[in-house]
Amino acid sequence: MSAPETKQGMIWGVGLGPGDPELMSVKADRLLRNATHVAHFRKAGRTGQARRIIGDMLHADVTEIPMEYPVTTEIPLTDPRYNEMLSAFYEESAAHLRDLSNAGHEVVIVSEGDPFFYGSFMHLYTRLKDDCPVQVVPAITGMSAAWTATGVPITWGDDVLSVLMGTLPEDALVEHMEKADALVIMKIGRNIDKIRNALRRSGRFDAAWLVEYAAMADQTVQKLADAGEKVTPYFSIIVVHGNGRRP
Amino acid sequence: MSAPETKQGMIWGVGLGPGDPELMSVKADRLLRNATHVAHFRKAGRTGQARRIIGDMLHADVTEIPMEYPVTTEIPLTDPRYNEMLSAFYEESAAHLRDLSNAGHEVVIVSEGDPFFYGSFMHLYTRLKDDCPVQVVPAITGMSAAWTATGVPITWGDDVLSVLMGTLPEDALVEHMEKADALVIMKIGRNIDKIRNALRRSGRFDAAWLVEYAAMADQTVQKLADAGEKVTPYFSIIVVHGNGRRP
Repeated sequence: MSAPETKQGMIWGVGLGPGDPELMSVKADRLLRNATHVAHFRKAGRTGQARRIIGDMLHADVTEIPMEYPVTTEIPLTDPRYNEMLSAFYEESAAHLRDLSNAGHEVVIVSEGDPFFYGSFMHLYTRLKDDCPVQVVPAITGMSAAWTATGVPITWGDDVLSVLMGTLPEDALVEHMEKADALVIMKIGRNIDKIRNALRRSGRFDAAWLVEYAAMADQTVQKLADAGEKVTPYFSIIVVHGNGRRP
Repeated sequence: MSAPETKQGMIWGVGLGPGDPELMSVKADRLLRNATHVAHFRKAGRTGQARRIIGDMLHADVTEIPMEYPVTTEIPLTDPRYNEMLSAFYEESAAHLRDLSNAGHEVVIVSEGDPFFYGSFMHLYTRLKDDCPVQVVPAITGMSAAWTATGVPITWGDDVLSVLMGTLPEDALVEHMEKADALVIMKIGRNIDKIRNALRRSGRFDAAWLVEYAAMADQTVQKLADAGEKVTPYFSIIVVHGNGRRP
């Protein structure tokens, strides 16, 4: 039954929050339970984190659209082929989603955390936003779950919070760590030794907390100094709390 | 009916998110609909923003505990009386909540945004956490709603995001604005001229967006340069997007 004028379906970019399904927004929950098409990222042959958060919330007859990242582990970030492979992957995924929208289907693209905050969804968004109706639903960030897990507020009064990626050069990390009051460090993985050095050089190491799997079943919280060499490569966030004015 | 051993009631610090009730977490929604005691901040004689977000979600027979900020508008931030008045207010509010917990009541303290991110709740939390069981529920921040409203992702690749309060001195603002890739500026109010100057001095003015009432019914989004002199004192957030690596 193809209507002569098919109305494009809405594409929703829906953040699922840090991991606990109860930390999803009411809106995300509603959109997912009513969804007919749900797209999610994953590594080849693995259940992605976003898909894991959703669990059994979906209709039995939903169409799932897994988007499998190309395998880039052997290619350095600086090699142009790295960007080319990823770019081709996002183009292809976006083309498929555009087709679904053009055929009148509403599609929910899910992502962990907040979609506009260092997320893969953004690479689809920039490729779709001029051709399709797209709406984005913000979400609780992984860093909010991490500082909540420490049991200590992150920022007070005039505190400056800087969010740093562990992929930055060590000197850049040190400079920002010295200037800001509160710190969040993400993308830790293989960068952990560099990050430890930068925290030591900036005098922030002893105040740093390591939160692994924030708001997930395996959550751990400890001072970074107590973590020894054992740092989970993924889903780890380092937090240094601010210390500003408080009545 | 007073039991010989009354179990302390849980105190929940529940973030309500940026304003749209659908952007509340499923957990916050559940806690509020089942709550027997709900505490919220407000200015004398005004409905507070947190209370406004909740709307008609509460039981008809809920006990509401409004906590009215003392009037401090005539006292400069630097005057010790300012801190003394606020401190006395938080002590008194905490004492009342502690009594409720000790009497076995579960109390939900609500706040807009995320409770551990520049929130008034933190001043109750530090006064209660050693005496009562307290659990904190993170939430979507106002800044997430603001960058989502601009329709442009905030951070890409290795971008550094710095969150700045408009209450900082102008030179400190300039220094951070020059160093970071992406910026969020909050607590704008009377500091708007200083913030404009700092953005100009750091070369970021033309890239700055002003979002008023993000995720609320009156939301507005515009380039700061187009806003003229008209800036809403409250619930305004300035956003400068990062421009990092993207495939």
